[in-house]
Amino acid sequence: MPATRRRFCQAAGGLLAAAAIPSALSAPRRPMSEDAVDLPPAKLTGRPLPDLLQPLPLPPGERIGFALVGLGAYALNQIAPNLANTRGCKLAAVVSGNAEKAGRVAAAYGLGKEHVYSYDDFDRIADDPAVDVVYIILPNAFHREWTERAFAAGKHVLCEKPMAGTPADCEAMIAAGERAGKKLMIGYRAQFDPYNLEAIKAVRGGDGTDGEIGVPRIVVSDHGRILDLAVTRDQWRAKKELACGGSLYDIGIYSVNGARYLLGEEPTETTARYLPRSDRPQVTVEEGVEWQMTFPSGAVASCTSSYRVAGNKRIHVQGAEGEVTLDPATDYYIRNLKIQSGDKTRDVEIPQANQFAAMLDEMATAVRENRDPKTPGAEGLRDVRIMTAIYKAAETGEAVKM
Amino acid sequence: MPATRRRFCQAAGGLLAAAAIPSALSAPRRPMSEDAVDLPPAKLTGRPLPDLLQPLPLPPGERIGFALVGLGAYALNQIAPNLANTRGCKLAAVVSGNAEKAGRVAAAYGLGKEHVYSYDDFDRIADDPAVDVVYIILPNAFHREWTERAFAAGKHVLCEKPMAGTPADCEAMIAAGERAGKKLMIGYRAQFDPYNLEAIKAVRGGDGTDGEIGVPRIVVSDHGRILDLAVTRDQWRAKKELACGGSLYDIGIYSVNGARYLLGEEPTETTARYLPRSDRPQVTVEEGVEWQMTFPSGAVASCTSSYRVAGNKRIHVQGAEGEVTLDPATDYYIRNLKIQSGDKTRDVEIPQANQFAAMLDEMATAVRENRDPKTPGAEGLRDVRIMTAIYKAAETGEAVKM
Amino acid sequence: MPATRRRFCQAAGGLLAAAAIPSALSAPRRPMSEDAVDLPPAKLTGRPLPDLLQPLPLPPGERIGFALVGLGAYALNQIAPNLANTRGCKLAAVVSGNAEKAGRVAAAYGLGKEHVYSYDDFDRIADDPAVDVVYIILPNAFHREWTERAFAAGKHVLCEKPMAGTPADCEAMIAAGERAGKKLMIGYRAQFDPYNLEAIKAVRGGDGTDGEIGVPRIVVSDHGRILDLAVTRDQWRAKKELACGGSLYDIGIYSVNGARYLLGEEPTETTARYLPRSDRPQVTVEEGVEWQMTFPSGAVASCTSSYRVAGNKRIHVQGAEGEVTLDPATDYYIRNLKIQSGDKTRDVEIPQANQFAAMLDEMATAVRENRDPKTPGAEGLRDVRIMTAIYKAAETGEAVKM
Amino acid sequence: MPATRRRFCQAAGGLLAAAAIPSALSAPRRPMSEDAVDLPPAKLTGRPLPDLLQPLPLPPGERIGFALVGLGAYALNQIAPNLANTRGCKLAAVVSGNAEKAGRVAAAYGLGKEHVYSYDDFDRIADDPAVDVVYIILPNAFHREWTERAFAAGKHVLCEKPMAGTPADCEAMIAAGERAGKKLMIGYRAQFDPYNLEAIKAVRGGDGTDGEIGVPRIVVSDHGRILDLAVTRDQWRAKKELACGGSLYDIGIYSVNGARYLLGEEPTETTARYLPRSDRPQVTVEEGVEWQMTFPSGAVASCTSSYRVAGNKRIHVQGAEGEVTLDPATDYYIRNLKIQSGDKTRDVEIPQANQFAAMLDEMATAVRENRDPKTPGAEGLRDVRIMTAIYKAAETGEAVKM
Repeated sequence: MPATRRRFCQAAGGLLAAAAIPSALSAPRRPMSEDAVDLPPAKLTGRPLPDLLQPLPLPPGERIGFALVGLGAYALNQIAPNLANTRGCKLAAVVSGNAEKAGRVAAAYGLGKEHVYSYDDFDRIADDPAVDVVYIILPNAFHREWTERAFAAGKHVLCEKPMAGTPADCEAMIAAGERAGKKLMIGYRAQFDPYNLEAIKAVRGGDGTDGEIGVPRIVVSDHGRILDLAVTRDQWRAKKELACGGSLYDIGIYSVNGARYLLGEEPTETTARYLPRSDRPQVTVEEGVEWQMTFPSGAVASCTSSYRVAGNKRIHVQGAEGEVTLDPATDYYIRNLKIQSGDKTRDVEIPQANQFAAMLDEMATAVRENRDPKTPGAEGLRDVRIMTAIYKAAETGEAVKM
Repeated sequence: MPATRRRFCQAAGGLLAAAAIPSALSAPRRPMSEDAVDLPPAKLTGRPLPDLLQPLPLPPGERIGFALVGLGAYALNQIAPNLANTRGCKLAAVVSGNAEKAGRVAAAYGLGKEHVYSYDDFDRIADDPAVDVVYIILPNAFHREWTERAFAAGKHVLCEKPMAGTPADCEAMIAAGERAGKKLMIGYRAQFDPYNLEAIKAVRGGDGTDGEIGVPRIVVSDHGRILDLAVTRDQWRAKKELACGGSLYDIGIYSVNGARYLLGEEPTETTARYLPRSDRPQVTVEEGVEWQMTFPSGAVASCTSSYRVAGNKRIHVQGAEGEVTLDPATDYYIRNLKIQSGDKTRDVEIPQANQFAAMLDEMATAVRENRDPKTPGAEGLRDVRIMTAIYKAAETGEAVKM
Repeated sequence: MPATRRRFCQAAGGLLAAAAIPSALSAPRRPMSEDAVDLPPAKLTGRPLPDLLQPLPLPPGERIGFALVGLGAYALNQIAPNLANTRGCKLAAVVSGNAEKAGRVAAAYGLGKEHVYSYDDFDRIADDPAVDVVYIILPNAFHREWTERAFAAGKHVLCEKPMAGTPADCEAMIAAGERAGKKLMIGYRAQFDPYNLEAIKAVRGGDGTDGEIGVPRIVVSDHGRILDLAVTRDQWRAKKELACGGSLYDIGIYSVNGARYLLGEEPTETTARYLPRSDRPQVTVEEGVEWQMTFPSGAVASCTSSYRVAGNKRIHVQGAEGEVTLDPATDYYIRNLKIQSGDKTRDVEIPQANQFAAMLDEMATAVRENRDPKTPGAEGLRDVRIMTAIYKAAETGEAVKM
Repeated sequence: MPATRRRFCQAAGGLLAAAAIPSALSAPRRPMSEDAVDLPPAKLTGRPLPDLLQPLPLPPGERIGFALVGLGAYALNQIAPNLANTRGCKLAAVVSGNAEKAGRVAAAYGLGKEHVYSYDDFDRIADDPAVDVVYIILPNAFHREWTERAFAAGKHVLCEKPMAGTPADCEAMIAAGERAGKKLMIGYRAQFDPYNLEAIKAVRGGDGTDGEIGVPRIVVSDHGRILDLAVTRDQWRAKKELACGGSLYDIGIYSVNGARYLLGEEPTETTARYLPRSDRPQVTVEEGVEWQMTFPSGAVASCTSSYRVAGNKRIHVQGAEGEVTLDPATDYYIRNLKIQSGDKTRDVEIPQANQFAAMLDEMATAVRENRDPKTPGAEGLRDVRIMTAIYKAAETGEAVKM
C-alpha cells in the first residue's frame, strides 16, 4: 500500500470514526491493479464522491443548535468559529450581559435578534426551538446555577470544566439533569483530541495487550501560565468567589484528568503542597500547587500547576518499556506527541486534529442518539472530588484518601 | 511584556492584518499596571469584547458568495469546509457533472436546489445573484474554457494552479477578465500561508535591511509524491489531455512559485532534465524533472519534482549568514519552519495557520475593495511561462532563456 | 563576524576556558579586512599553530597520574578511554580483584605490571610515584574505606557519586582528606558538562541579571531505568549492603544535584513517597521514590527516580518567562538542550561536549594548582544528607527539614 | 529484552564490528532468568570483564604508528586527538615546516625529538621503525608528491580527500603504492561514520530486500560554508595552485561521494553550472557549483556546493516509499539522521559515533591484515574523475559522460 494511501487512511481512521458515507456515492475502494484502471475520458464527466477526510456536514436543518452562555475569549475564539467545523452542530443563540457585544456576535454569525438573550431574560430560551444544547462558558462559580436554569428550560447542557466549585454542586447538577431527562456533558476537549487519543493507545494498548510503552508506572504532568490581571479573560480567575479555585481548577485539572484517562483508572490517595504566592493582594486563589496521586495499579502521578511560570502544558507517561511525551499536551492548536519504545522514537503528526469540533460533535451525537456523552457530569464530579482532596492535602500536609 | 501577551500579539499580528475591531467594543489595550486593575465583581456582568484571534466574520448577507466548479477531493476536503473559516466568504453554489453528488453536497451545506448547476446548464449562473466568484477546481485542461465561461456570466474568477496549459491560454484568460471588468486570481494558497510568509521575511528582510539569513544565494526545493492511478483524484493527472503537464505542473509548480516569492525576483534562465519514467503506459505526462533556475541577483534554485517518490514538499533557502528550512513547505495542514542564523536555530510554530481561509478571504477582499488580488492572472502566467521553458530545456538539453 | 567564526568561538568559549595558548605560536587573531590578507605562497611553508578547539595536551611527564580502583563498566567504558581525551591526566595504575582482567587492561593501556594492584596489595601504591590520584569506582559501600586507604597512601582522591551511604561516612572521608592534606573530589560529571553549564546560565543568568527564562520557580526532574539483574553492572546495585541505597542513590541523585546546581541554592525541606516495588526478592534496595524539595527562594523541585521504567534522564526548569529542558540531561553521550524564552525557542548543540574529560581535568588542575576541586567532599555530603532526608520523609510520611 | 539491553547492543553492533573479546574474560551473555541470578557477595571480589562499548585498545607496542604530515587545523583538532580513541593506532611522528610548532606538538603527545621531521628531512623517515603509516594532511596540490615520497620511504599512506588535482595524479599515486607494495587509503571519514552507515542500510537494504525507503530515486545534497580568508586554514583553499579546485573539491566532494555510497553505484553522466563568484580577487578557485549526476539505475543526484553560504552539510535520499535525511550529514561532531518510511518517522541517535577513530582503525587494520582498505586509491580516483567531469560540464554547458 503506497505511503500516500496509508497517510490518508490514518487520517480517516482517526477522524471519520463511524462516519457512514453512503456507498452509492463513494469511490470504489476495492484493491485494484493499476493496470486495470480506466482513466477518465478527456472531457468533463461527473466523477464519484471522492474520499473525504471528514464526512459531509449534516444539512443545517438536522444540526443540533447550541446556545453559548457567556461570550468571552474561549467562546468567541475557540467555540463559535469551530461550530462551523463540526458535522452536526450549529450556533443557534447567544447569551451575554453585554447587549451590544451579543448583537454584534449574533449578526456576524447570522442569528436573528430573537436568538440573542441577556442573563436576565435567558429563561425564555425554553420557547426557542432552535436551541437544543446550552453551552455554559461562564466563570466557574456560575456553572451550577446556569446548568440548573438550562435544564429548567428543557435544554441539554454542555458545561465548561471545572464542572463546579464543590462536589455537592456537581451532584446537584447531575441530579438536575436526571430530573429533566436531559444530557449533561463537561467540556473536556482533550479527551476528544486525536493526539491525546493516540497517546492513550500507546499507554494502555488494547485487546489484552500492553501499549507500546509497556506497563505505565509514572505520569509526570505540569501545567503553568502567567495569570495576567491586565488581560480581561484572566481577571475573574484571580477572584475566589468567581473561580472557586486557582491554578489547579484552571489548568492543573488537565493534569488530573490527563493522568486518569491516560492510565484508565482512578486515584486513591493524594499528597500536595501549595507553591509560593505572588504579592498581588487582588489574587485570592492559590497560585500554584504540586501534588501526587496514587493509583490502584501502583502507578503514580507527580504534577504541578502554577500561575507564576511561563506557559507549559506537558504530560509524560513513563512505562516499563518506553515513554509517551505530549508537549504541549493540551494546547488549543499545537500538540506534539513523541512515542519512545525500546530503541525506537517516533513523532506522531495528525493533520487537522480539531478537538473543539470533535467535542462539540460528541455532544450533538449524544443528543441525537439519546445516549450519555463520553464525558458526562460524573466525569466532572470525579475531578472536582480529586481537586478538593488535593487542596485538603495541601492545607493539612497530610495524605488524603479518596 | 509577559510571554502570554506576546504570544497572543504574535498570532494576532500574523493573522489579523488590517482587521479593524471597532474600538468601542474592544477591551482597553492601554498598558496598565496590574495594581490599577479593577477585578470584576462577584456577579455576572457584561464584559467587553475580548481580544480576538481572528476578527468576527462578516454577517452572512455581506459575505462574498463562491460557486465551486468541480466537486473533487480538493473542493470538498479543503475548500468547501474552509469557506466557513473565512471572515467574508460563503458557499453559494456548486457545479458538477454528477447530479446526485452535487445535490448531496448542496444539502449538506444548506444550499437550495436552485444553486446546483451541471456543467451543461452552468451559464444560467449569470442570473444567480448569490454568486460573486466562480472558483474553478477542474482538471487543468478546462481552466481556460471555464474561466472564459465564468467571465461571460459576469462573475469574478478564482482558478486553481497551474493556471492553464500554455502561456497563450493564460493570456486569453487575463484578457477575458479585463474585457469583463472582473477579477482573476490564481489559487496560490502557499502565498497566504503564515509559515511561508514568515519564511519570506527571514529571507528578504525589509526596510532596506537583509533578512535573518543574510543575502539569499541558493534555493533547494523538492516536491514528490506517488501518482496512484487507483485513486480517483490522481487519474486525470496521469493523462496529458487533461493535466497539460506532469509532476511539474502538479507539484513542481510549488518549487517554481516558492523560489520566486522567497527570493522576490524572476528567473532569467533554466536548465532541466527529465527523470526516468515508470512503465505504466496509461501515464502520458512526465513523471519527474529536475531543473535549475538563475535569478538576476545571482541566486540559483535547484529543484526536483517527481511522481515516483514518497511524499516530500521541501524548500531550503541558503543565505550568506543562515538558512531557512520549510519541511514540509506546502502541505495542506502541517508546515515546519526552522530558521538558522549564525549560531542560533529557532523553530517557528504558528497556531491556526489556515492558508485556505486566508486565500479565500483575499479573493473576497479584492472583490469587495475592487482591487487586484495578490496573486492575479499575471502571477499564474509567469509560472506557466517558466514551466514551459523548463520542459523545453528538458526536451532540448539546452539552457533556455526567459 | 561570519557564522563559521562565531561557531568556532562558541565552541572554544565553552571548552577552552582558561586554556592559555602561547601567543608566539598562535595565529594572529586581530580583526582584519579580507583585503589585507596575504595568502600563502604556492609551496609548503610552516604555518602558525591553527586555532585549536582544545588546547594541546600537557606532555606526558607533566600529566597527573590516575589509579582506577575497580574495573567495571563505568571505569572501562567511560573513564579509562577518556583519560586520553584530557589535557592533563593519564592512566597510571589499575586496581582490581580480578588479576587476569587487570593485567589485560594494563597491557591495553601500556601500563607495566608494577602498576597493577589487587585489592589486597593496594596499600603499596603509596610507593608508586606515577600515581597522584586514586579514582574510586567501587560499589558505594566501599567508598569510605577506600577513600581512607587512598589518603593513607598519600594520594588525592576522586570518588564516584554517591559519596557514601551516610552523612557520617562522608564526614569521615572529608576529615581523612584534611588530615592527609590531600584533595577530595566527587565525580559529579554533569557539573562539567557543557550542556548543563549552558542550562545553568539560562536559569541563573549572571552579573545581577536574570537568566533567559526569568526567575526560576519549578524544577521537574525524572530519572529512571530498568535495573536488570542479568547485567553484571546492575547486580551490586540491587543489594543494600553494597549499594547503600536504591534508585535514588544511583540515578535520583542526578535530580537532587541538578536541582541544586541549576537553582544555585540548597533545599530546606523535603516530602517523599516510595514507589511500588517489583516482586524480585533479591532486590533489597528501594526501586523508586518520588519527592519534592523546597528552596529558600520559594522554588520547588518535583522529582521521581525509578528502577522500573525505561530510561529517562530529564530536567525541566520552569521560570517566570521561559523554560529550560534538558532531555536527556545526564546521559553519558547524548544531551539535548532546548531553551524557550518568551515566544522564541532554540536548540543548543555543542560539539565535542566531553563531560568525562572535563571532570578528570578539573581534578588534575586542582591538584596541580593546589586548590579545592569544584565538587569537593562537601558537595557529596550535601547530597547524601538530602537523600537521607528523602528516605526519612518516605519512611515517615512527614515532611523533613534540612 | 529490556530497553537498556537493546540500546547497548545497538551501540555495540554499530561500533564493535568484529571486535573479538576473549570469551574467558567476558560476562556470560546467555539469556537468563533474573531468578537464577546469583548476586555478588557483600565484599569486594574480582568481577569478570564487563560488556565493553568498544574493545580494549591494543597494547601500545602492537599499535600501528602514524606520522602526520602537516599540522594544520584538521591534523591537530581532529586527527591527533582521535588517534588516542582508536583501538590500534598511535601517533609516531610529526612532519611540519614550522619547527617550533612541530616540537611543541611532539612534546604534547610524548614523541621524542627524533620523531619530528621537517618537510626537508622527511625522507629519513624511512629509517624510523615507529612509523608504519604516513597520513598526508597537506594542501591538495601536494598530495601526489608526498604520497610518492612516503611510498619511496617504504611507508603505507593515508591521504586526505580530495586525492589529487587530476585523474592522472591519482593514477600515479596508485601506481606508486603498487610498486612499493604498500597500502593507499583516502581519508573518506564519512564512509566510517555510524550515522552514514545506518543511512546506507535504510537506502540500500540488504540480502535482496529493499531498504526502508524503497527504491531510491533522487539524492539531493548540498554543502556550503563561507570561505573566510582571515582564517588560516581557509587561506590555501582560496588559491588554485594549492587547492587544485574550489568548493567542489573541498566540500562538494561529500555530495559526490555520498551519492555514490548511498546509492551503491557509479554515475554515468553529469550536467553542471558554476554559481556566481564573489569579488575577492585573491580567490582563484570556483566559489560554487550546482550539478546533477545520472546513475545506471535511473536514480539522479542534484547537488550544490558553495563557499558563499552559511554552513550546510545535507543529504536527502528520496525513495519510492520514504526518505532518509542526514542533516548535518558530514559534520565532524554532529549528525542528525531521520528515516521516514510510510507514515512512520524515526530519529536515529548513535552515541559515541567517532568517524575519525573508525577511519584510522580501518587503515591500521588493513595494514595489520595486509588487505586493501575500504576506501583505497581507486575510490579517490573515482571522485576526482567525476569532479573533473563536473568542471568540464560547467565550463562547456554540455552534459559530460563518464
